[in-house]
Amino acid sequence: MILHGGDYNPEQWPGHVWDEDMRLMKLAHVNTATVGVFSWATLEPEEDRYEFDWLDRIMDKLYKNGVRVILATPSGAKPHWMAAKYPEIRRVLPDGRREPQRHRHNHCYTSPVYREKTQAINARLAQRYKDHPALHLWHVSNEFGGECFCELCKQAFREWLKRRYGSLDAVNTAWWTRFWSHTYTAWEQIDEIDNTVQGLVLDWKRFVTDQTVDFMRHEIAPLKKFTPRVPVTINMMGWWVDLNYRKFAPYLDVASWDSYPEWHGGRPDWRVACDFAFMHDVFRALKPGRPWLLMESAPSATNWQRASRPKLPGLHRLSSLQAVAHGSDSVLYFQWRRSRGSCEKFHGAVVDHAGHEHTRVFREVAALGRELETLKGVAGTTENAEVALIYDWENRWAIEAASGPRNAEKNHGETCIEHYRPFWQAGITVDVIDMDCDFSKYRLVVAPMLYMLRPGVAERMLKFEGTLVATYLTGWVNESDLCFLGGFPGGGLRKLFGIWAEEMDVPETETIRWRGKTYKARQYCERIHAEGAEVLAKYSDGRPALTRNGRAYFIASRNDERFQDDFAGMLIKDLKLKRALNAKLPVGVTAQRRGKRVFVMNFNPTPKTVAGKIKLAGYDCRIL
Amino acid sequence: MILHGGDYNPEQWPGHVWDEDMRLMKLAHVNTATVGVFSWATLEPEEDRYEFDWLDRIMDKLYKNGVRVILATPSGAKPHWMAAKYPEIRRVLPDGRREPQRHRHNHCYTSPVYREKTQAINARLAQRYKDHPALHLWHVSNEFGGECFCELCKQAFREWLKRRYGSLDAVNTAWWTRFWSHTYTAWEQIDEIDNTVQGLVLDWKRFVTDQTVDFMRHEIAPLKKFTPRVPVTINMMGWWVDLNYRKFAPYLDVASWDSYPEWHGGRPDWRVACDFAFMHDVFRALKPGRPWLLMESAPSATNWQRASRPKLPGLHRLSSLQAVAHGSDSVLYFQWRRSRGSCEKFHGAVVDHAGHEHTRVFREVAALGRELETLKGVAGTTENAEVALIYDWENRWAIEAASGPRNAEKNHGETCIEHYRPFWQAGITVDVIDMDCDFSKYRLVVAPMLYMLRPGVAERMLKFEGTLVATYLTGWVNESDLCFLGGFPGGGLRKLFGIWAEEMDVPETETIRWRGKTYKARQYCERIHAEGAEVLAKYSDGRPALTRNGRAYFIASRNDERFQDDFAGMLIKDLKLKRALNAKLPVGVTAQRRGKRVFVMNFNPTPKTVAGKIKLAGYDCRIL
Amino acid sequence: MILHGGDYNPEQWPGHVWDEDMRLMKLAHVNTATVGVFSWATLEPEEDRYEFDWLDRIMDKLYKNGVRVILATPSGAKPHWMAAKYPEIRRVLPDGRREPQRHRHNHCYTSPVYREKTQAINARLAQRYKDHPALHLWHVSNEFGGECFCELCKQAFREWLKRRYGSLDAVNTAWWTRFWSHTYTAWEQIDEIDNTVQGLVLDWKRFVTDQTVDFMRHEIAPLKKFTPRVPVTINMMGWWVDLNYRKFAPYLDVASWDSYPEWHGGRPDWRVACDFAFMHDVFRALKPGRPWLLMESAPSATNWQRASRPKLPGLHRLSSLQAVAHGSDSVLYFQWRRSRGSCEKFHGAVVDHAGHEHTRVFREVAALGRELETLKGVAGTTENAEVALIYDWENRWAIEAASGPRNAEKNHGETCIEHYRPFWQAGITVDVIDMDCDFSKYRLVVAPMLYMLRPGVAERMLKFEGTLVATYLTGWVNESDLCFLGGFPGGGLRKLFGIWAEEMDVPETETIRWRGKTYKARQYCERIHAEGAEVLAKYSDGRPALTRNGRAYFIASRNDERFQDDFAGMLIKDLKLKRALNAKLPVGVTAQRRGKRVFVMNFNPTPKTVAGKIKLAGYDCRIL
Repeated sequence: MILHGGDYNPEQWPGHVWDEDMRLMKLAHVNTATVGVFSWATLEPEEDRYEFDWLDRIMDKLYKNGVRVILATPSGAKPHWMAAKYPEIRRVLPDGRREPQRHRHNHCYTSPVYREKTQAINARLAQRYKDHPALHLWHVSNEFGGECFCELCKQAFREWLKRRYGSLDAVNTAWWTRFWSHTYTAWEQIDEIDNTVQGLVLDWKRFVTDQTVDFMRHEIAPLKKFTPRVPVTINMMGWWVDLNYRKFAPYLDVASWDSYPEWHGGRPDWRVACDFAFMHDVFRALKPGRPWLLMESAPSATNWQRASRPKLPGLHRLSSLQAVAHGSDSVLYFQWRRSRGSCEKFHGAVVDHAGHEHTRVFREVAALGRELETLKGVAGTTENAEVALIYDWENRWAIEAASGPRNAEKNHGETCIEHYRPFWQAGITVDVIDMDCDFSKYRLVVAPMLYMLRPGVAERMLKFEGTLVATYLTGWVNESDLCFLGGFPGGGLRKLFGIWAEEMDVPETETIRWRGKTYKARQYCERIHAEGAEVLAKYSDGRPALTRNGRAYFIASRNDERFQDDFAGMLIKDLKLKRALNAKLPVGVTAQRRGKRVFVMNFNPTPKTVAGKIKLAGYDCRIL
Repeated sequence: MILHGGDYNPEQWPGHVWDEDMRLMKLAHVNTATVGVFSWATLEPEEDRYEFDWLDRIMDKLYKNGVRVILATPSGAKPHWMAAKYPEIRRVLPDGRREPQRHRHNHCYTSPVYREKTQAINARLAQRYKDHPALHLWHVSNEFGGECFCELCKQAFREWLKRRYGSLDAVNTAWWTRFWSHTYTAWEQIDEIDNTVQGLVLDWKRFVTDQTVDFMRHEIAPLKKFTPRVPVTINMMGWWVDLNYRKFAPYLDVASWDSYPEWHGGRPDWRVACDFAFMHDVFRALKPGRPWLLMESAPSATNWQRASRPKLPGLHRLSSLQAVAHGSDSVLYFQWRRSRGSCEKFHGAVVDHAGHEHTRVFREVAALGRELETLKGVAGTTENAEVALIYDWENRWAIEAASGPRNAEKNHGETCIEHYRPFWQAGITVDVIDMDCDFSKYRLVVAPMLYMLRPGVAERMLKFEGTLVATYLTGWVNESDLCFLGGFPGGGLRKLFGIWAEEMDVPETETIRWRGKTYKARQYCERIHAEGAEVLAKYSDGRPALTRNGRAYFIASRNDERFQDDFAGMLIKDLKLKRALNAKLPVGVTAQRRGKRVFVMNFNPTPKTVAGKIKLAGYDCRIL
Repeated sequence: MILHGGDYNPEQWPGHVWDEDMRLMKLAHVNTATVGVFSWATLEPEEDRYEFDWLDRIMDKLYKNGVRVILATPSGAKPHWMAAKYPEIRRVLPDGRREPQRHRHNHCYTSPVYREKTQAINARLAQRYKDHPALHLWHVSNEFGGECFCELCKQAFREWLKRRYGSLDAVNTAWWTRFWSHTYTAWEQIDEIDNTVQGLVLDWKRFVTDQTVDFMRHEIAPLKKFTPRVPVTINMMGWWVDLNYRKFAPYLDVASWDSYPEWHGGRPDWRVACDFAFMHDVFRALKPGRPWLLMESAPSATNWQRASRPKLPGLHRLSSLQAVAHGSDSVLYFQWRRSRGSCEKFHGAVVDHAGHEHTRVFREVAALGRELETLKGVAGTTENAEVALIYDWENRWAIEAASGPRNAEKNHGETCIEHYRPFWQAGITVDVIDMDCDFSKYRLVVAPMLYMLRPGVAERMLKFEGTLVATYLTGWVNESDLCFLGGFPGGGLRKLFGIWAEEMDVPETETIRWRGKTYKARQYCERIHAEGAEVLAKYSDGRPALTRNGRAYFIASRNDERFQDDFAGMLIKDLKLKRALNAKLPVGVTAQRRGKRVFVMNFNPTPKTVAGKIKLAGYDCRIL
């Protein structure tokens, strides 16, 4: 079945509202509630005094009403009393000042006290509800993120470095510290911030991920101890670039994420939809072979975006089914009921401040809930993709940390999506993976801007028997951001692609010609030499702009959309890639296969017809 | 009589310049000088050693030359010796660092030492000059503003909260602190900064106003003790949004403000004039029934604006008379003589660095001074307005503090002015009031974006028998920024307007149709339902955009200028509102009645003719 | 001979690379290597333990290969061990926090420890290599810059003030401290930061320059002691506005600077070339009568600019010869070999990561090296200019520190270049000097925006017998930023120019008419009166815009390029100024005479023909 429901904070409301909530949940076809996010101050109002009665009552009430519970651990926001008594649990800013309490998501992941407090409350929650029939899933903390520069974290970073490198000599070598006299002669000299040393920048970001994972594992331990059969997830933030979510996946039973597209703004809605399809495919590929969960989405507008409009009629159903089409086994919302006060009171919710069911938003949510109940052949299924695209967090960090080359923007993320777009538009399932994933199960691997190569990646590419597409900026540095010597792309890829990339130009505009058509290029125009590769396209001055060496394509420049369409079109045709629907899809319409179903989705506000017969209203979704 | 003169700092100049000043003041028809602003280091060069001789001499000299003195208390800038000896009088920044001395206007309003020092110097000034015939008015400190985060202020804030709420439970309820586990269990946990808690944000701003008022009252006490008959004012800054000036008014004998329009810049001058007419009307309404004072204005250019041009010929007279037309009993300048050094040396003054009277600026000032001497039937008079517009500082704070809904900009201030503009253009006197003012004396009350309703406001609106105009975003929250439940506009206004505002859309563009014309809307387009109200205008999709329920109009969208003109035009006609002049006024020309006079003002650089007979040169003002 | 080579950091590379470097240097016709910049951690890996063996070997190796050495002192980057042991050598930020180690160029110039450590390493370097035949020049530290706010610096500033002013009274007078009660009554009250006091702002900047010069002299002392005959330089940064390089010049044997034009970006290349010609002429005039050195330049792209493109074919030769044409006796690069890691690994270099000589960049460098070897009659020569333009650092500081008048931008630097441009375009040698330089040797002195007049400057202008051109904003303040009284331009210049500047207008647009043509003006349009001067051009309202009083011209407004061309054209014609080539040069083509040669340079990408016969390819340079 598909979960339908969302974040529910009854502790903010008096009891009579709870009964009304039950009535409304039934009307909305809600079967799931996420409870306990940010409830620590209510669960433990003073140190070691716990209050579970209210939670007992709400768990029972939900169960009686057929609503299962995703139970959250409360560590996303520490209570004021704890921050006052244990200042060390508050983060230290890069400039050395300790953060005041305030806000949320601002605890130190290293602090032994915070880890102890977290384990204590988690253990009590698990012990108390381990046999509760409503308990369906653990939701650990909330949207992990951020970094801390306290002495404990600094020390942990140095220990992490010792484990990684063994010796200071190895650190000095990896970070090329003879540059600017940055040679370390004692571990204590290592300052976690020095953006002139890219090896350090990368390692600090790796450490932050690892330390957050470690904290998460501390949270999970008591849950697994007392409820070994209850699965565990965390709600991730797709566009949060500072954590490498791949490192979290092994410890989770199911992946989930919070998806907040900015609809009806300056860009066409179908472009927004493409971005979020891409990110859905990141999460589908995070735990291969398992559905994922849409943990949060807005039933209406958000309140924190620059210009957040309510979803126009139909879009709520469409965008929710989009997630399901890409592998989600849930449509969950933040939030069930709008809070009355504080900073998220204007974030869209199923139940408005008006308090009743007679709102457009409620009606659309209820209708979707009803439809999800009848949707068969989808829940539990997964798709096998023929195409993979490499979107690698560490590679993105390395590109952003590097000083040059660039023309204003580097746009790693946007570029990955631009390479993904034509496949999405054609209705082809794409796994968005990182460079350590297994390539061998795919027929096509697209690797935009693969600037950094971790050990073994080039080797696995050389062994890969499918078609490989790389671009400018490929194979420049190793995992420590040390440049490959001997000519780019390094690590052996020069031979694979049969080219040498001599210089990088970063013009405002350039043109290339391919198969009789002229395309615009901009920002990155690598100057390459064919060394065995066939030259397919050329720059205006006749030099190679696109090459093929066996099954390895190299795109030297950042080209316009038309090129992307034509190039991907060629691959789709040549490789006979499987499409969800054998029909040409209008712009902004796509189809995604899942299980026994094909979802045909129109992200345009206007009606479209597919294959001459499937008629879609604006913002419509047909499930075949 | 109309006061004419301005800020005078003889302590910066040698004695021979003083005599020259007296000669020049006569030539300039100056009758008033503001003395002592920022003179503390001269008055008390070291602790408890006072030097009043220079001030005695200048007071005498001015008196002998027919110039009355507005005597300032010097607290706007603390002497270096005091900041060095008593570091606690310097403010603490939000990040906890104590500010260095430097600049001005940066003392802690809570510090007992600073209060004591201020009272001591004020008492001495009052005692010394209580019988001086030149003493006309007290000018307390200078342009109060800013906030301090020292321990004394934090403690005072907590005391303020205790007085306001009585218990922590009441604070937790008012601030909705169960959200994000923000429940306080001890007063000490309350941090004065947490922009995620809007109730706290508002209360902190209220506290800052109250603490500044309290400081001001400490300053006033010795003045009133020794000179009970000398009136007291402070020079306020109209566009300074961080203080609620309404709270200062009860303790002042006369309101005054510093007005610095940015003429001849990117916008037409008449728009600038409209903004400042609006603010003049704020100050006229601050002490109902009493004239106010234009305490500072620039005789030429300022030096601190982005592009400050000297006033073009004629504009000095026009802009000065504009203040008089709106109720000012003065035309006062910052500054009499340009300082030779430091950061305001290029701020316009009556006497330039050239030092003589043969400048264009001096000639225009002198001519105006002469004209003011002969202007009869104006000084001392006030006007009764039929129209009021609600511009409420706390409401503005609440709108700005809220996270969403918005499309980029919220523009509360600009919107209020836009609703004011058509009345100003028509020559109708408008009181700009806050929501606690008495509505009953007006025939029309316009309340743009009245998002917050303090207790009693809705009730007084329900009782109000005149015409009421409200807009999108009305009645969303109570005084603690807690949303009204049961449907917007809350607090009973849903019934008054006969509508329910279900959703807020924030599109880039929308259109509405009214009386056969199409108008543009943007940024805020509330989706409302008529519940008894008559639908006057509709959105492009046919839903209501403008309604009328008896005498209560509701404008659901932010519309273009043409709509504002037509809508206000309808009200003016229907209500037969009194206009200063029964004639259609060209764009950029307005008329204001005051006492026995009507000021007809042309803010265009080109000549205009009114009613076929009143011919106005560019930047001309005719007094009828 | 012309030096050819650049920065070389062999300590980053293993020994086998060194031999390859020698082979490649020969191929590249390199005769000079700058060694030791940032090598402190290698030279002194722990306190008082020195390692010179590697340097001995590289010095010997270079010498044997015919490469002379510019030996750097290593103080540009302090080793980690030193920063850890002596925290006081790290700078303190304006907010009082001590900077972490990190980066480079961030040591305190006052710190006795750092001065001692610097002298110690410098003395050892000088003693060890004093007789080494490769040692050609000392390169002291690297790109001095920045400021420190530690207690030692604060104290040094107060001592500097005591020396400059003698008494606090004199400080108070110079800084006009009665304004805002800023009177100082004890030296300890002086805070080095208070941007409301312009006299203080200027004096702090003067102090920073003086303290940096003092530090540099400490560095030089041991070098001169042990190697009195080896000349000394520092590599300056032309566009670094915070140091007054004129104060450094007396202690240097040769001037040198690091030149990084941003070619092929949004502006035409010839405009970029003009900017850098201007700065070359600053450095040529810094040590009159002596060639200077181009110490750093990029053989290809930089990595730190917004959009740094590799030089297009031909431009490397052209831009290098441009420096030679303007008086450089060197073409030196940062850097010889690209570092493998850290933040400058993508900065262009002679030897790429590819590691061999078969790159376009290497080939162009080698070809230029060969050409420089054969270029006779240039090295060692200097030119005498007939024209001087005043670009004065202190004046620039004063203009930028002043609050108003302005219309958005003040653009002192851009304005100076705009006045320089027509002379550069015409092939006329211009010395760019400061206001203390001797004017008498020139026939024409152009002084744009000479806002501040130091003592004696006006007097020297009055005595000057050549033609003088001044503009709006001339003679407003003295060296303490105190306004001249009695009418601008002050200090006696009112009489010299025969005008009085009454008011400054700052419109967006204005026009002036001169000799029947209309020109645009903007931003600064001073309102002047002719007092004896002849009015040559007028504003649209008929008031004077350009005047002449004998040989003294006054340009009242900031005019468009066409005016600059026509006005300079008139001067060139009237004064019969010497041009490198008697021919009209196309836009973007210029000619510069040096020694026996004339360099004709085409900064356009397209071919141009000069005087009907000299044909230049795009980016070509012909040496006649």
